[in-house]
Amino acid sequence: MERLLVEPFYVMKVLEKAKELERKGRRIIHFEVGEPDLPVPEAVKRKAEETLRKTELRYTEACGIPELRERIADYYEKTYGVKVSPEQVIVTPGSSPGLLAVLKVVSEKLGRISYPDPGYPCYKNMLKFLNAKGEVINVESEEGFKVTPEKIKTEAVILNSPSNPVGTVYTEEELKRIADKAFVISDEIYHGLTYGKRAPSILEVTDNAVVVSGFSKFFLMTGWRVGWLIVPKEMVKDLAAILQNLVISAPTLSQVAALACFEEECLRELEANVETFKKRRDLMLSGLKEIGFKVPTSPDGAFYIFADVSSFTEDSFRFSFEVLEKAGVAITPGKDFGYNKTERFVRFSFCTDERNIEEGLERLYTFLRQR
Amino acid sequence: MERLLVEPFYVMKVLEKAKELERKGRRIIHFEVGEPDLPVPEAVKRKAEETLRKTELRYTEACGIPELRERIADYYEKTYGVKVSPEQVIVTPGSSPGLLAVLKVVSEKLGRISYPDPGYPCYKNMLKFLNAKGEVINVESEEGFKVTPEKIKTEAVILNSPSNPVGTVYTEEELKRIADKAFVISDEIYHGLTYGKRAPSILEVTDNAVVVSGFSKFFLMTGWRVGWLIVPKEMVKDLAAILQNLVISAPTLSQVAALACFEEECLRELEANVETFKKRRDLMLSGLKEIGFKVPTSPDGAFYIFADVSSFTEDSFRFSFEVLEKAGVAITPGKDFGYNKTERFVRFSFCTDERNIEEGLERLYTFLRQR
Repeated sequence: MERLLVEPFYVMKVLEKAKELERKGRRIIHFEVGEPDLPVPEAVKRKAEETLRKTELRYTEACGIPELRERIADYYEKTYGVKVSPEQVIVTPGSSPGLLAVLKVVSEKLGRISYPDPGYPCYKNMLKFLNAKGEVINVESEEGFKVTPEKIKTEAVILNSPSNPVGTVYTEEELKRIADKAFVISDEIYHGLTYGKRAPSILEVTDNAVVVSGFSKFFLMTGWRVGWLIVPKEMVKDLAAILQNLVISAPTLSQVAALACFEEECLRELEANVETFKKRRDLMLSGLKEIGFKVPTSPDGAFYIFADVSSFTEDSFRFSFEVLEKAGVAITPGKDFGYNKTERFVRFSFCTDERNIEEGLERLYTFLRQR
Repeated sequence: MERLLVEPFYVMKVLEKAKELERKGRRIIHFEVGEPDLPVPEAVKRKAEETLRKTELRYTEACGIPELRERIADYYEKTYGVKVSPEQVIVTPGSSPGLLAVLKVVSEKLGRISYPDPGYPCYKNMLKFLNAKGEVINVESEEGFKVTPEKIKTEAVILNSPSNPVGTVYTEEELKRIADKAFVISDEIYHGLTYGKRAPSILEVTDNAVVVSGFSKFFLMTGWRVGWLIVPKEMVKDLAAILQNLVISAPTLSQVAALACFEEECLRELEANVETFKKRRDLMLSGLKEIGFKVPTSPDGAFYIFADVSSFTEDSFRFSFEVLEKAGVAITPGKDFGYNKTERFVRFSFCTDERNIEEGLERLYTFLRQR
């Protein structure tokens, strides 16, 4: 394969192949996508429609419309009991460009940044894009795939709780010990999606950290592209100048529509979805275990199950394509999440309904029995 | 002033001060904004509304929805008579992140990149963000602020035609000579907005170049955040992998709504706007000259007039604030566009109606007479 400047997402190769099979008439069960399938609340759509009718969509302030920054600040007070000033909230076009800008500022001003492996691939890819000094932290299944303070040798660290691809949730105590050791960039994009265990925000244990989050998971607004950062006051000017240059501003309609997310009724609707995801998790988790997959860490949040397939294969990348072609089930190869024993793992996503989950499990069962 | 990692836009300081004055009840004439004031075509809004009702807004392909890539490719054939394959078209969330990704790929794979000064500030700021080797080309008023082949000492060069802040349009012959000398990154974001002179695309003189463009100027869709790149085939994979990591995808609703831009009726409506901008240009240009501003290069495109104020001041930055406070007219200091004699210049934008332009000119006249 040719060398690219940054690694693409390998799941895209799976998706490509899946689409090819679908064009040929095969029905594919999608356990590979990291995108919630539920519809956004009506209130969000209504707000968008009203706005479209009422006003022209001009650029906004680089850090986002003031009203949205205020609502997000309020939400942190209500949800986590932490005081955040609206000026510390920076609205971004999805959480990705926000993360990029943060990695730049932290690596220039504070020092090296370490990140978990396995983990979300953008961490290493963005650091590479920036030519910034990153250091990998191998997180192990025996430790619930968690970063521990002892492993941190850098000035800053990226945490992800609930995590992709494992669903690991860090406790307040764990966060505290890590924040004592290094500056934390806390990727909290899956917050809101937890199953029985609360995910504390890094801001509950320290003011001196960055939160990266957004409207794409719990709030279901993926294609709308709107996220946020919460940052220490002294970082605001640098981040504003960088984001102004890199993105100008987040999509205006999405910013205004996102305001609706914080209405009581809307939040209740979103809360109810968590129960749906929990049922799917339970169904998929017990099903996978029953048919022989090992799941060293059950997910307490997000919508993924990271399964050990080393009893079936030595190469989970090839295994993913075999499963796709023979069983018609699309899954994400561990390789997408780094190099630390990832050839042993695959990721199942439960962003699809229970009927599909059941059918996928049956297909996997048949496939493994015949293999 | 504290040192930031990249420079902010100084015009934001003007805008801040203008808003402060407006809060105190002053009426300010805005000649500082680089954002068209005309409404987007109804067809675009209609398409957005229909889409909102009909479908959920999921992530799209990293390079954009296939239909939009096709329409953009068609548009290049119709407008410039050049053959572009849809796979060479990459849809981005505004042109800025596209430019960033291109600067990364070109600087890693081809070499150093030079850019004009005065010029759009993002060129130098993004190169700085990337820690990429950039080299400035001082463009002079006596040469119509144009880059000439003799001045290029690098493997690649950024051109901007029609240009910000001057409105300079390069001829086909000029583009050809430059493309023979270096790889061209052609910022064509103001294409479509020319007044009597046609702006050729770099693709008319070479296939081996990158076009950076988007829907924010001629197409009026600023806050929608959707742009595009046209790139040589061998760059597609790198750019797709980078953009996937940096932005995931462009806002879905904006991509679908942008399809409407290419309908016949819509294009006619947009073409008619050019006449509006031309009238404003003529009014502002003759007015400014009449009251004593020197305009070394009259704009043939875009919506700016770059005026020499060295007979009034030695510091156009301070002058901008004086004009704002005393005349209530907001303008952009030359400083925003680099370091090459920019203390002598200010930029006037004609993104406001003729009545405002007339009032602004009167205020400037009175201010200069009393000074």
